[in-house]
Amino acid sequence: MKLNEIGQLLHGGDYNVDQWLDRPDILQEDIRFMKKAGVNVVSLCIFSWSSLEPEEGIYTFEWLDKVMDSMYENGIYVILATPSAGKPPWLIKKYPDIMRTNEHRQRLLYGERENHCNSNEIFREKVRQIDEKLAERYAHHPALILWHISNEMYGICHCEKCQGNFRKWLKEKYQSIEALNYQYWSRFWSHRYTDWEELESPSPIGETAVHGLALDYKRFYSDRSIDFLQMEIDAVKKYNPEIPVTTNFFHFNCGINYWKLAEKLDVISYDRYPHWHSGADQSTEWEIGLESAFAYDYCRSMQNKPFLLMESSPSSTNWMPVAKLKRPGIHMLGSMEAIACGADSVQYFQWRQSRGAYEKFHGAVLSHNGSEHTRVFRDVEQVGKRLANLGHIKNTETKAQIAIIFDWDNLRGLEEQKSLRNINRDFEKVIMEHYEALVQNYVSVDIIAQTADYSRYEIVIAPMLYMFLPDTAEKIRSFVKGGGIFVMTYYSGLVNENDLAFEGFPPFSLNDVFGVKSEETDSLEDTDCNSFIWQKKEYQIRRYCDLVQLHGAEVLASYEQDFYAGMPVLTKHTTGLGTAYYMAARGEVEFLRDFYAKIIKDAGVEKIIESEYIRDVMVKERHDKGTKYIFLMNFSKNMSEIGGERLSGYEVKIEEKCFDNTALGFQ
Amino acid sequence: MKLNEIGQLLHGGDYNVDQWLDRPDILQEDIRFMKKAGVNVVSLCIFSWSSLEPEEGIYTFEWLDKVMDSMYENGIYVILATPSAGKPPWLIKKYPDIMRTNEHRQRLLYGERENHCNSNEIFREKVRQIDEKLAERYAHHPALILWHISNEMYGICHCEKCQGNFRKWLKEKYQSIEALNYQYWSRFWSHRYTDWEELESPSPIGETAVHGLALDYKRFYSDRSIDFLQMEIDAVKKYNPEIPVTTNFFHFNCGINYWKLAEKLDVISYDRYPHWHSGADQSTEWEIGLESAFAYDYCRSMQNKPFLLMESSPSSTNWMPVAKLKRPGIHMLGSMEAIACGADSVQYFQWRQSRGAYEKFHGAVLSHNGSEHTRVFRDVEQVGKRLANLGHIKNTETKAQIAIIFDWDNLRGLEEQKSLRNINRDFEKVIMEHYEALVQNYVSVDIIAQTADYSRYEIVIAPMLYMFLPDTAEKIRSFVKGGGIFVMTYYSGLVNENDLAFEGFPPFSLNDVFGVKSEETDSLEDTDCNSFIWQKKEYQIRRYCDLVQLHGAEVLASYEQDFYAGMPVLTKHTTGLGTAYYMAARGEVEFLRDFYAKIIKDAGVEKIIESEYIRDVMVKERHDKGTKYIFLMNFSKNMSEIGGERLSGYEVKIEEKCFDNTALGFQ
Amino acid sequence: MKLNEIGQLLHGGDYNVDQWLDRPDILQEDIRFMKKAGVNVVSLCIFSWSSLEPEEGIYTFEWLDKVMDSMYENGIYVILATPSAGKPPWLIKKYPDIMRTNEHRQRLLYGERENHCNSNEIFREKVRQIDEKLAERYAHHPALILWHISNEMYGICHCEKCQGNFRKWLKEKYQSIEALNYQYWSRFWSHRYTDWEELESPSPIGETAVHGLALDYKRFYSDRSIDFLQMEIDAVKKYNPEIPVTTNFFHFNCGINYWKLAEKLDVISYDRYPHWHSGADQSTEWEIGLESAFAYDYCRSMQNKPFLLMESSPSSTNWMPVAKLKRPGIHMLGSMEAIACGADSVQYFQWRQSRGAYEKFHGAVLSHNGSEHTRVFRDVEQVGKRLANLGHIKNTETKAQIAIIFDWDNLRGLEEQKSLRNINRDFEKVIMEHYEALVQNYVSVDIIAQTADYSRYEIVIAPMLYMFLPDTAEKIRSFVKGGGIFVMTYYSGLVNENDLAFEGFPPFSLNDVFGVKSEETDSLEDTDCNSFIWQKKEYQIRRYCDLVQLHGAEVLASYEQDFYAGMPVLTKHTTGLGTAYYMAARGEVEFLRDFYAKIIKDAGVEKIIESEYIRDVMVKERHDKGTKYIFLMNFSKNMSEIGGERLSGYEVKIEEKCFDNTALGFQ
Repeated sequence: MKLNEIGQLLHGGDYNVDQWLDRPDILQEDIRFMKKAGVNVVSLCIFSWSSLEPEEGIYTFEWLDKVMDSMYENGIYVILATPSAGKPPWLIKKYPDIMRTNEHRQRLLYGERENHCNSNEIFREKVRQIDEKLAERYAHHPALILWHISNEMYGICHCEKCQGNFRKWLKEKYQSIEALNYQYWSRFWSHRYTDWEELESPSPIGETAVHGLALDYKRFYSDRSIDFLQMEIDAVKKYNPEIPVTTNFFHFNCGINYWKLAEKLDVISYDRYPHWHSGADQSTEWEIGLESAFAYDYCRSMQNKPFLLMESSPSSTNWMPVAKLKRPGIHMLGSMEAIACGADSVQYFQWRQSRGAYEKFHGAVLSHNGSEHTRVFRDVEQVGKRLANLGHIKNTETKAQIAIIFDWDNLRGLEEQKSLRNINRDFEKVIMEHYEALVQNYVSVDIIAQTADYSRYEIVIAPMLYMFLPDTAEKIRSFVKGGGIFVMTYYSGLVNENDLAFEGFPPFSLNDVFGVKSEETDSLEDTDCNSFIWQKKEYQIRRYCDLVQLHGAEVLASYEQDFYAGMPVLTKHTTGLGTAYYMAARGEVEFLRDFYAKIIKDAGVEKIIESEYIRDVMVKERHDKGTKYIFLMNFSKNMSEIGGERLSGYEVKIEEKCFDNTALGFQ
Repeated sequence: MKLNEIGQLLHGGDYNVDQWLDRPDILQEDIRFMKKAGVNVVSLCIFSWSSLEPEEGIYTFEWLDKVMDSMYENGIYVILATPSAGKPPWLIKKYPDIMRTNEHRQRLLYGERENHCNSNEIFREKVRQIDEKLAERYAHHPALILWHISNEMYGICHCEKCQGNFRKWLKEKYQSIEALNYQYWSRFWSHRYTDWEELESPSPIGETAVHGLALDYKRFYSDRSIDFLQMEIDAVKKYNPEIPVTTNFFHFNCGINYWKLAEKLDVISYDRYPHWHSGADQSTEWEIGLESAFAYDYCRSMQNKPFLLMESSPSSTNWMPVAKLKRPGIHMLGSMEAIACGADSVQYFQWRQSRGAYEKFHGAVLSHNGSEHTRVFRDVEQVGKRLANLGHIKNTETKAQIAIIFDWDNLRGLEEQKSLRNINRDFEKVIMEHYEALVQNYVSVDIIAQTADYSRYEIVIAPMLYMFLPDTAEKIRSFVKGGGIFVMTYYSGLVNENDLAFEGFPPFSLNDVFGVKSEETDSLEDTDCNSFIWQKKEYQIRRYCDLVQLHGAEVLASYEQDFYAGMPVLTKHTTGLGTAYYMAARGEVEFLRDFYAKIIKDAGVEKIIESEYIRDVMVKERHDKGTKYIFLMNFSKNMSEIGGERLSGYEVKIEEKCFDNTALGFQ
Repeated sequence: MKLNEIGQLLHGGDYNVDQWLDRPDILQEDIRFMKKAGVNVVSLCIFSWSSLEPEEGIYTFEWLDKVMDSMYENGIYVILATPSAGKPPWLIKKYPDIMRTNEHRQRLLYGERENHCNSNEIFREKVRQIDEKLAERYAHHPALILWHISNEMYGICHCEKCQGNFRKWLKEKYQSIEALNYQYWSRFWSHRYTDWEELESPSPIGETAVHGLALDYKRFYSDRSIDFLQMEIDAVKKYNPEIPVTTNFFHFNCGINYWKLAEKLDVISYDRYPHWHSGADQSTEWEIGLESAFAYDYCRSMQNKPFLLMESSPSSTNWMPVAKLKRPGIHMLGSMEAIACGADSVQYFQWRQSRGAYEKFHGAVLSHNGSEHTRVFRDVEQVGKRLANLGHIKNTETKAQIAIIFDWDNLRGLEEQKSLRNINRDFEKVIMEHYEALVQNYVSVDIIAQTADYSRYEIVIAPMLYMFLPDTAEKIRSFVKGGGIFVMTYYSGLVNENDLAFEGFPPFSLNDVFGVKSEETDSLEDTDCNSFIWQKKEYQIRRYCDLVQLHGAEVLASYEQDFYAGMPVLTKHTTGLGTAYYMAARGEVEFLRDFYAKIIKDAGVEKIIESEYIRDVMVKERHDKGTKYIFLMNFSKNMSEIGGERLSGYEVKIEEKCFDNTALGFQ
């Protein structure tokens, strides 16, 4: 069965059954439990290298044959992993260079996981071999629907091999050492390079002062990781190119450029562990839910189609400072939220709790007590039942008319720079504030890279777009001229892709488009605030205040306090067919909500439902050509009411409405 | 004179007179001062290696002959130390491998103290030599009453020699690599070992994920340290097996299993530095005093007989963040508290303050001013006088009918695990809460390992006994069936001795004994609380809440809040002749006090005095066959009254009562 | 032109024009801007090694010729730097041993700046060569007024070469290993050395317990750094001994003994970056200004003559946690404050913002926008204009009659010791409290080393003079006997120069002079306080309380609380012609202000102006033979009034008064 053609939403999880090879009763028992819980998919072999190749070159697939066959016989699909994330001890004993070298230039000892050097050729060869063996044997197995390459890839190596590869990467990028010197502005502190061999990755005991170099090493390593992944994809596709591949994403700040990685994958998959109930007050579940929604929208936007929720906990985790039990209703709410935002699956880490080692207390469908008569099992069963009734939602999409730019290079650049703010730069929080304001307006939102095509959207928002990649300024100009609405904020357009400051006033080369020049930025202490009045309402300002010179823009609001009282804080400028807004300061979420309400209305963007924001209620939609599936989700433990519907605490309701979606591109 | 036969409580301290070898006047002066202060014992040579063996193989004992003889002539006993804790520079210059290798695999440079490798054979040989030289010369010296082996032993080495010894230790423990793999659950993350050589000690740059391995390395190293100590004991006993040996304990969390170490010693000795006056409010001295009392009861329980307070400060310390001066009365109170809890001595670190280096500002009887006309000297004199009148208390014992299990393996296991709580696990605090509740009931308490014989007690309490060693469950079952009262709490009986989770519901294999199954544990945030009502009084709950299924137990109280309101929080189950209580949640000390008051009464355990708890007043007892010595100690700076006795601020009164103690085992 | 003979205050800054060698337009533009801003000096070549010697032995001075000539032609003086602080990559690629070895014994990799080994002979040779080349070419250039040796020197190396040099340094200091053992009190923990080769620098993986050793390594390395500087001075002076030299100081706690370093320099220069607007309340600018004033007075006292403000930011910095923009008026206030305290220049880091690397967002006169039409440029212009009118103030001095001892060895000693307080020792805060109390009395103050000549002053104050260097006690005795007023505090006179505790009661050997013996020190928790009444007013005490025995002193005030209530807290003792005060406890600033007001009056010391302290108004003076230049500076943003003068927010007024200053030593 092809993944796309499966007419059910997937429900299941990681199944590390090779931890019980001496217990054939466990496999039988688990199949019975899976059926009871409505499980139709398992992920196998994520850390099974030891079980598949117990000694170098000796492969033992018999146990896996049996598991795959049993799954197929019982109507359970299999996602099969390549086991590269976890290395057997014998491998490192023989080839210790496979272990990563850290930034202090210490080679790691055996242990943990996902800590190999991506430049090591022996490791590449060993991984290719076992991947091919797996693919050769199972690529046509009827249970197989998807390859799961490695696991939660991340991390950086600093070994000599990687240094050599880095130098090659630099030569290719810059061609000449003088071009590199210019971009790194290396005469500063006399760091002008005269030979490629002088370049080395950043280190706490070496270079930390050249931001361009630091950025490049991150880019280089992201590329190395993707290159490694491509090698694994090639190994499995060689035997059956029809089986799609994924790798499970887990954090957009993990060191790999997910936008680039996404290009190599047939489907995006993602692991999510919300820190439910972590706060003291009632609104917290909303905030936690919002973070998840952002992450899901980000995954959905990456390929503009549904993704898989590859991992989630059916219960608690074992790595948070304090992990409270999920309150009744939360498991259903969190699972349905993923579906609402574009997931075609709810999968767990893990099916059965390991008895020992690091994650033995991580939640699982079946815990050490091995019993189905538990609260957790019943929660999972209920999700299984509900998903079983939602098969028609599979493959439906969400087409947003608004996008937020959340860019990997910009994130990296903001991290590295030394600036007026070296604490609480809040870039990710600012992104989340804009996202929240849009969600509260009940519109769909895409999360895009700055390299994306803006023309698909009515409104594009670029919070703190500090770094402009080569084409960005021109793209913004064209978008606005062509009729788009673009929202730019403080601290944008300061540096190029190598963290080299632009000459002139920010935002770089767009002073005419926005009608402003940013002269300087006041970075507020936490005890400071400023404010402004817009549409007769006063809003607070925190942390960032650009002082801008007006060059043609219309002033919508001005600072109320401090020596720059009266200077513009919000401007609007019409250029060509479009409109360019500049937010000079960081207004509160309430302002953003009100502001976006207005420009959404002005732009004629259609909302998912026509309602004011109801506290703690999130609304998301998926659609196909003729139907709109509207998810009403109550993140409050109390009853809420929206659009005439009453939602009890943590309840999710799904409404299906006939709708002509051709305007969104459906045909 | 034999230590046991000395008819006086000991009073004295560390005397590092070899720091003044060029000042013969100092020794004479000190003897005069010692007599004035009522000192009858000094500890010599704790860090004297440099003075005893200034060059390799050249020994200079003449100065020590003189000191030993002078002490004897002046009626002062000598405790003689082996000097292994402090290494002379020449030794490390010649044999740098003696220095410990840290977990990052760096070999230490010369410096500090107590940082040698316990596997190093040259060091063992050098230590054996100097120990034998000392013993050969002084084992029959009439001043000698005790050997003090090394000093505050602790710490772990990771050198190649230790790795090799660790592998031998593992082979002996597990016999087969597969047995080890099973216990470590090493297929998790593919860490299945195929050769003993693949095993290495945990490291921040290597393995941290295999908790069984981490535990074993701690056990291995505790065994190595004890083995090293045994070598030293053998060296000194060879020349006179009649002289008893001790080593000074200083922290139960120092890395060595004190219960195992205790088996090698003739007498327990202990160093205690209470952080007096560290808090803002009045009750603090009680809390500080309580921690000391726990530690003393722990030392007393270890061999079920009196111990020595080997070190304490007559004044302040030099290593606390802020060390306030002892307020008037505190020195007497703290000294008498040790005696009350079973110490047969009050000894100081140190007699005379070093003029230089690390501890030059650590308190001493004589400070740099060299004067007896100081507050500190007068405080010490008063303690000396009081002790001189208490010689008849020496060797008297305390036989408790109640015990708390505070177990080294369980402590180590709780430290290592990753679980629902990774901050504020509070194990030691929970132990202290139960201890405080018992102390407030004015009963004697033993602190025991889980391997101890429970049958000596009426009531045994096991707070957070997460890890069950092989016989523990059976021992608890037998104890209860035989008529004992056993109190078990939340988060107990989850894993075996190798941190491998038990199958089934906790507490492991005792669901029938306690009549409950623990299904899951809710780990509360600090901003959360729950509560319950017992005997018409409401009590607060923090941090830990087990959700238990009832299987026969009687419910004494139920949760009042949250989704598990109404579920049992305190249960009782009668099995055989005994009673098994299960506390599902962490109630406050006030609850524990009330609860234990009831079961103490039910069990007919006799209290030291019949009184309600008087705030800040601690009561302890020692006894011999016909007398009970009751210590009433006021930890408040204000007057208190108990049992008709008035105690002024910080006062200690000792009452002697004729009593037939044969029921406690005295004959 | 000789630096001394320039009749203008200097205004300018670091000009790293070699970052724009490909942009000849920039140099022309900058000269135009400099003239507009009233700039008359630039510092060149601070990090230009790469531009001056792009390959080993190949020198390219042509660009510098042009810059020097252009400056001269345009009437702008040049301060020329030796480029040793920033090393070109080719140098380290070829000679990696030049990089420093850190305390963990890791040799650093290439990167950052000012991190070479001062013992490395190749580096010394390479630096000498380039320094001589520069001097040979420019030592007689008419624009050159000053050599700027290296940049912000600091830091410590632990390589084998440094260890060897350290051992030589120790041999020279102690002559015999036994003398060293005595001073280090090394029999403690058995660390008695038998061979110089056993000595090694302190390390977190080695020795940390021998404070004398730790102190000596700091002294040794300070000496190494000064020796390196002397080599550079010799290299440039060889070609023209008339050109004065400086190196820019930046933090008195940077690892180099500035008092010793100052002896090598012709003029002191200093970099200052006040953290303006860092707090929440209004008084903060006063506090920030006070810290700067202290630093400036310290620089002025060092050679008892004007110094240069070598670096300051015309705008913000890029390394503070949060750097707010300078509010209007602050740039003028901060610049004039430096002049008021004895600076003969206002110089900036930097003239033009670097486009890339670490400091690209550090403030500059010209930022990336390259425009003169900015707030910052206008602020700089205004300072330029004001300075242009103050040429007659250049070279005027400030002769104080009061001095505070702030000593490098004492600072180092207090840092290293382990004592009753291991947090919040507050030495620098205590120094600042005494300084503030004097500033609030509107008197001039010198900041001196304990080795200084006290006889120049009426009053000498020694807060927390923990460590007495060899002559200190005798100097204090003579000063008091000769008629001086000496104020000593708690925690003084405890140890000798090697941190070896003195025998007897502190303050060492001065019990007769002060009439007190300090018996012990109570170290208060932050929640504690004590108090005393002096002159009918009650004052609070924090953290330090000496308990002193009276031996002849008159008691001026006594403790009010705690067990030492009634014991002396402030005493006075007349000896010879002078008076010795002992402050046993740390009273608040208000007390210090009142106390100093009284003794200033008693001593007949003349105040700068006769006024009570006006909140937020600082008053400083400079003078020549016949004139007093009085600076009235308002650190409040609101209007203030002092001596009949009204000062608007942040305003600075300068009053010139005819005055016969011959009594101050002017002739």
